[in-house]
Amino acid sequence: MMDSEGGKTPIGNLGKFGLIEHLTKDLKSKNKTTVMGAGDDSAVIENGDYLTLVSTDLLLEGIHFNLTYTPFRHLGYKAVIRGISDIYAMNGAPEQILISLGVSARFHIEQLDELFEGIKIACQKYAVDLVGGDTTSSLTGFTIGVTALGKVERNRIVRRDGAKPNDLICVTGDLGASFLGLQLLSREGKLSRADKDFKPDFSGYEYTIERQLKPEFPSGTVVELSEKGVLPTAMIDVSDGLASDLLHVCKSSGTGCRIHSEKIPIDQETYRLAQEFNIDPVTAALNGGEDYELLFTVSLENYEKVRQISSVKIIGHMTNPEMGKYLVTPDGAEAELSAQGWIG
Amino acid sequence: MMDSEGGKTPIGNLGKFGLIEHLTKDLKSKNKTTVMGAGDDSAVIENGDYLTLVSTDLLLEGIHFNLTYTPFRHLGYKAVIRGISDIYAMNGAPEQILISLGVSARFHIEQLDELFEGIKIACQKYAVDLVGGDTTSSLTGFTIGVTALGKVERNRIVRRDGAKPNDLICVTGDLGASFLGLQLLSREGKLSRADKDFKPDFSGYEYTIERQLKPEFPSGTVVELSEKGVLPTAMIDVSDGLASDLLHVCKSSGTGCRIHSEKIPIDQETYRLAQEFNIDPVTAALNGGEDYELLFTVSLENYEKVRQISSVKIIGHMTNPEMGKYLVTPDGAEAELSAQGWIG
Repeated sequence: MMDSEGGKTPIGNLGKFGLIEHLTKDLKSKNKTTVMGAGDDSAVIENGDYLTLVSTDLLLEGIHFNLTYTPFRHLGYKAVIRGISDIYAMNGAPEQILISLGVSARFHIEQLDELFEGIKIACQKYAVDLVGGDTTSSLTGFTIGVTALGKVERNRIVRRDGAKPNDLICVTGDLGASFLGLQLLSREGKLSRADKDFKPDFSGYEYTIERQLKPEFPSGTVVELSEKGVLPTAMIDVSDGLASDLLHVCKSSGTGCRIHSEKIPIDQETYRLAQEFNIDPVTAALNGGEDYELLFTVSLENYEKVRQISSVKIIGHMTNPEMGKYLVTPDGAEAELSAQGWIG
Repeated sequence: MMDSEGGKTPIGNLGKFGLIEHLTKDLKSKNKTTVMGAGDDSAVIENGDYLTLVSTDLLLEGIHFNLTYTPFRHLGYKAVIRGISDIYAMNGAPEQILISLGVSARFHIEQLDELFEGIKIACQKYAVDLVGGDTTSSLTGFTIGVTALGKVERNRIVRRDGAKPNDLICVTGDLGASFLGLQLLSREGKLSRADKDFKPDFSGYEYTIERQLKPEFPSGTVVELSEKGVLPTAMIDVSDGLASDLLHVCKSSGTGCRIHSEKIPIDQETYRLAQEFNIDPVTAALNGGEDYELLFTVSLENYEKVRQISSVKIIGHMTNPEMGKYLVTPDGAEAELSAQGWIG
């Protein structure tokens, strides 16, 4: 501690992922049931024929959700999606979830009932059991802790570090919608607060709003990949934005990458809304985050099989690390991919 | 929802445990690996020859800790103790822990380093692996989410619902110290803020302060019970106060109870400090909370074996439910035990 005595280093200096790495370096496992610790979507624990996957997340008011335009039912639903996406991202099947709440006196039971309605509907849809949690009073904002558990066969676990040069880079669904939905909700919210007679109008943008407020996870695609006998070489959920999450996979796998801007799946509604906000749609897809889609890599031999899955788009390929990590535009220009900073 | 339309019910109306029960009623398990859900210290999940135990907690600034007198190192240590105590309380061995942090811009990396030093020291001491977590920015206070995992042999799990009338009620260590340590820290903290030349003086009260800031868990007693062949009939960790936690066991087991005030273990320092604060020491032990001790019941045949364990005190016995739940004072007077309300 000598060299930092009296020193105060702002947390932003390390960035979110640098911070996690900094805090969890030098960890050595003492229990033989600990298969894998920090550094992927979930922790991995020995469980007989299977591996148990565990992940935990914090959702904080004002950072992850804004209660002025987020119905409690949707917030509960999304909390479950957020938890289980980390389990799917290891190719696991989510099975249990625990929810902890910090609630201040400004909330009432009917709101918590709505929150739990959303939680229960999501649990029902994704066949997950709500098995516990904790409630506590809070002096400040509304706080949700989500812990998800799942399982995966030992030889079917997919980590972030298995991608090889020439592997195809695939994403499910479409990207950037959730981010633009949030911009729209935020703008209309501000107008509503400024003028109480103002009526927010979301018509024509129902899809982006729903992607922000009540996202789904592409669990069907995970099943389809399995049925076709495709085991991804690496996988991560797209939660921090395609660029940031792809860079994680490259770093863990020790590869470079090339993705093509015109191949990134962007919904037409997202495209229109991006133009309305003067935001480049590709930038929204690269950096928006909260997409709850899967980014994965497969070996070349799976090209035909992956192409047959309509919800999956091939957007590029992995390269040798010395080739760098680049976005290629239709005119052939290459822009280096960069990660986001400390945002939660 | 008809009958509550437009209604706003304060959360305090249900109390903390009523609220949890209310929110998690009607849950049905969909996965055969889900052995037991909400309603005990940990959730229970199938794991081959063993059962996996999982618990999750939220620690919020201003509710569970005050950073004006809590060193970050101690806070990290205590977060681990809090997590693993729920695993021990099911007679399990804690093995893994995940920590999530919500951190606002007023904190710096050196503070998080100290927090993680405390976390790592506790993990080392209790042979627990830190396997993951999450960090996020926060607009408000410092937030810690703790998820603990452990395992227990199938036939050695101890729940809250196994106590029978005539079973002996036992507690480990001593009670009330943490609560009085907190009163002392709080008083000296206020005096320090009022007069910057004021020097807090904790001499003579080191034990109560340590019980509040850096508690230990009686893991050795769990081992000793096992070595003597004593399997408790019910168990819970004393975190909300002896009265509240004993009432949980009575409710789950469908029993009444009689405990004797003069048998409740209270350290002499706690006793002295209680008098200084004009607080009845027994009341502090009954309702103080944060003791991180174990409350358990054993059948009468284990009386001699339990008596040999110096860290365990027998404080009463379970009764038929119609006998009620009472504290008996030395003069033979009986006072009904009551639980605390919504406190976190």
